[in-house]
Amino acid sequence: MKKLINNPDDVVREALQGTAAAHPDLKVFFDPHYIVRADAPVQGKVGIVSGGGSGHEPMHGGFVGMGMLDAACPGEVFTSPTPDQMLEATKAVSGGAGVLHIVKNYTGDVMNFEMAADLGKAEGIEVEAVVIDDDVAVQDSLYTAGRRGVGATVLAEKLTGAAAEAKATLAEVAELCKKVNDQSRSMGMALTSCVTPSAGKPTFELGDDEMEIGIGIHGEPGRERKKLAPASGIIEQIAGTIIGDLPFKQGDEVLAFVNGMGGTPLIELYVVYNELTKILDGKGVKITRNLIGSYITSLEMAGCSITLLKLDDELTKLWDAPVKTSGLRWGV
Amino acid sequence: MKKLINNPDDVVREALQGTAAAHPDLKVFFDPHYIVRADAPVQGKVGIVSGGGSGHEPMHGGFVGMGMLDAACPGEVFTSPTPDQMLEATKAVSGGAGVLHIVKNYTGDVMNFEMAADLGKAEGIEVEAVVIDDDVAVQDSLYTAGRRGVGATVLAEKLTGAAAEAKATLAEVAELCKKVNDQSRSMGMALTSCVTPSAGKPTFELGDDEMEIGIGIHGEPGRERKKLAPASGIIEQIAGTIIGDLPFKQGDEVLAFVNGMGGTPLIELYVVYNELTKILDGKGVKITRNLIGSYITSLEMAGCSITLLKLDDELTKLWDAPVKTSGLRWGV
Repeated sequence: MKKLINNPDDVVREALQGTAAAHPDLKVFFDPHYIVRADAPVQGKVGIVSGGGSGHEPMHGGFVGMGMLDAACPGEVFTSPTPDQMLEATKAVSGGAGVLHIVKNYTGDVMNFEMAADLGKAEGIEVEAVVIDDDVAVQDSLYTAGRRGVGATVLAEKLTGAAAEAKATLAEVAELCKKVNDQSRSMGMALTSCVTPSAGKPTFELGDDEMEIGIGIHGEPGRERKKLAPASGIIEQIAGTIIGDLPFKQGDEVLAFVNGMGGTPLIELYVVYNELTKILDGKGVKITRNLIGSYITSLEMAGCSITLLKLDDELTKLWDAPVKTSGLRWGV
Repeated sequence: MKKLINNPDDVVREALQGTAAAHPDLKVFFDPHYIVRADAPVQGKVGIVSGGGSGHEPMHGGFVGMGMLDAACPGEVFTSPTPDQMLEATKAVSGGAGVLHIVKNYTGDVMNFEMAADLGKAEGIEVEAVVIDDDVAVQDSLYTAGRRGVGATVLAEKLTGAAAEAKATLAEVAELCKKVNDQSRSMGMALTSCVTPSAGKPTFELGDDEMEIGIGIHGEPGRERKKLAPASGIIEQIAGTIIGDLPFKQGDEVLAFVNGMGGTPLIELYVVYNELTKILDGKGVKITRNLIGSYITSLEMAGCSITLLKLDDELTKLWDAPVKTSGLRWGV
């Protein structure tokens, strides 16, 4: 295992210590671990909370800040955070207008967020939860009943964050989150595996001439293992599957999110984006917004995912609204 | 070789096509290749041009935009751009106030930028060039006489870009660039090699239990090859070397730049930042600004570099000024 770490058991804690030192706009709490905006709770604003296993950075901690999340709960690497983390985060960002939990569809995350919501309600906080399940690759998976939650999570965090900042109600923000999930589709692929610090060896084995199409963000199996191929064919398969699933149609306007899995050079993501534009052009689907970079990662895995979100004026306006986080920032 | 590419010869061109499609604030030219701000030339403003081999993204193309570079010239991967690229870029951003070339200290880059400056002057454009040589690891290197230019380049591009935006003169912007270089020191390390698309095999060999301290951004040899060690010891060695070189002293305020080499997960960079803060705290050096992420990369190399820049009020103010590029953005 080749990693810039100390004791594998201390990676998450030490990275959070680094986060606390780096970003004065954040407050970082330990035992249980959670990250909140330094100005939380914002009175009269819906609080937005997400969380999940660590190892997907910048998601979620890198998305805490004005215009996006109010709090993030980082679990150990690829391990769900616990209900007490989620409860403390929920209480910390409750400004009287309720709290939205954005939950990626993994069994542990869903169960623990449900428990935290019940505990929050018992303390008098109105809580709504929306489960993100945008991954079209497989129906059920290693840690998931139904589709997995992947790239749409980043988009949902940005868009609901903007709506909450504009003082939308809890019901409105939850409805928006469902809409973003309903109008998003994603799929990924891996060229290499990744190594969790605690395991110290690759999560799965992949031959030197192989890739996994439809990979999950924890290395869960995808649709098929294939021989390496040029980017054009890979993106044709992935984009085609996504487009056909919603389906995205001629005349649709979309946000195209090309995401790196952690170990993929940015130059390759632009090659991927170039392929994607050709495919969408051919279908008459228009990219009006884009996001290109490594935002929902799987440690050092090489590979990419593509997310398409069907836009309308409301979503476009929310996307363009100011955001100030360490992972995503514009307008401020 | 596992890469999301098509023909290895087409990687740079296709990534530039993706860049052109993604970013309407940029204009991308081909044969010769260069990227300029869509609003170039800005009349009465010093134009800032940089460039170098591709494979270090987001540097330089990702730093073209308001408040940073006016143009970037991407060479083939790890290969200097040619004088005609630099000349065309220089002409495209010349708004009557002169043009600054920011040149990383690699023999090919220096030679070609010198030739481009001469050609630009022959066409009546005032050109100044500043060579960046902040890497304390080694004196001479595989492609370099003297110290190599690394992380300080990113900082110099941001800071001179801000000064140029505020209509500083060419002499002032060049002086500022020299100051940033003089007050910066950097050093890197690698856990793994990288693979250029054209070579198709690792640039250098590194054992499963080895790392290279003082690596160059093209995989040039560093100071020593060592057994893997915890992050604390690695960062102590690198930071200690940097601190001792300027030297940085008790009471100094610095910008601390923790850079990923391309294949390093963000969570590890925060572990590194945490170690760095402890070391600087111990020396009485105060971090007042930071930058954490993969900004000057070596394709998919795993590893990191640290750059420290001694700040003063002028530099801090320029750092905080708005910037709008695909790689670095705030305030707009």
